[in-house]
Amino acid sequence: MKVFTEEIYMHTETTVAFVNLSGRVQECVDKSGIREGLCLVNSMHITSSIFINDNESGLHRDFEIWLERLAPHLPITQYRHNNTGEDNADAHLKRTVMGREVVVAVTAGRLHFGPWEQIFYGEFDGRRKKRVLVKIIGE
Amino acid sequence: MKVFTEEIYMHTETTVAFVNLSGRVQECVDKSGIREGLCLVNSMHITSSIFINDNESGLHRDFEIWLERLAPHLPITQYRHNNTGEDNADAHLKRTVMGREVVVAVTAGRLHFGPWEQIFYGEFDGRRKKRVLVKIIGE
Amino acid sequence: MKVFTEEIYMHTETTVAFVNLSGRVQECVDKSGIREGLCLVNSMHITSSIFINDNESGLHRDFEIWLERLAPHLPITQYRHNNTGEDNADAHLKRTVMGREVVVAVTAGRLHFGPWEQIFYGEFDGRRKKRVLVKIIGE
Repeated sequence: MKVFTEEIYMHTETTVAFVNLSGRVQECVDKSGIREGLCLVNSMHITSSIFINDNESGLHRDFEIWLERLAPHLPITQYRHNNTGEDNADAHLKRTVMGREVVVAVTAGRLHFGPWEQIFYGEFDGRRKKRVLVKIIGE
Repeated sequence: MKVFTEEIYMHTETTVAFVNLSGRVQECVDKSGIREGLCLVNSMHITSSIFINDNESGLHRDFEIWLERLAPHLPITQYRHNNTGEDNADAHLKRTVMGREVVVAVTAGRLHFGPWEQIFYGEFDGRRKKRVLVKIIGE
Repeated sequence: MKVFTEEIYMHTETTVAFVNLSGRVQECVDKSGIREGLCLVNSMHITSSIFINDNESGLHRDFEIWLERLAPHLPITQYRHNNTGEDNADAHLKRTVMGREVVVAVTAGRLHFGPWEQIFYGEFDGRRKKRVLVKIIGE
């Protein structure tokens, strides 16, 4: 059995951002030498997500608007969490809708994707350094 | 370590549909010969889901109505993604709520389920061929 | 390859409750002797969740209020599932938003967490006995 671990660092310019990680995660699979197994990719933060969807900028804008409707940022005082001095309670809720992690099969040394599947980091409280964990096990 | 990989094909008659895959996934576990491990089941498409819940048709209808309230199909023009010529932006959002994948423990050669857990494929943009991936690792 | 399996029992006093399981899951990792691998933690019930977020009581109250807005308990008759004699259809929907499971990397014998990550059991139909499954594979 082989195991591979890597943390990927991220720094977004905007509060909300989507970053395509598909290439970097495949590089991890390449480096691991693992041909068959499971690849976990998770945000190490609680106000950002890892999710799989289409690499289409219109859709990403739809996600942003939709999440703002489901969990509005304003007014900040609507959330008890923000009484702690934070203003990011909505980011915790948005990340919950989008998910913390994905598990992707590795087959013949490749991320085993359907035709349109791409891995994204979804940031909801950005403009600071964040981390994503890639853990692969297999043989 | 043993590894098993299978793609299951699906074709729903309706745009929205729920298909119980529990039996077919257990068949994969049987074929794999794996007694202890982890079983990943994921949609290979970005407008459909794999999720675990109750096998109760009233609940499935509740899911359908609830998802339509959270991410309505109409008007199509409310979504930027639909400017690409698609009309399925809402299906991308609905699948996000329901999830892309499940990971289920395999114990003593069986999917290690609680009393009411069943695996479903949730389709939100059907009437065409789709695929589900089953990847099992263990021993 | 090593495999570890344990069911954790839970009984909440209230219908909705959040229980921090981080310590108990780390104890499972310790008992397993696994230093590198993947740890699955899932609810075995379909009206409760496992999720990762902040250990902050204000945020937990925000989750509760937000979920009640997305999937209200009342009126009970709005849900077809409740025609079966149940009154917990909303709990199935709430659990769907929060998720059934998490997969956490195990690195050097520890749950490989970011700075604020904690594992929670989220109950939406409590006041009875429930179970959580921990399955760890690795070496």
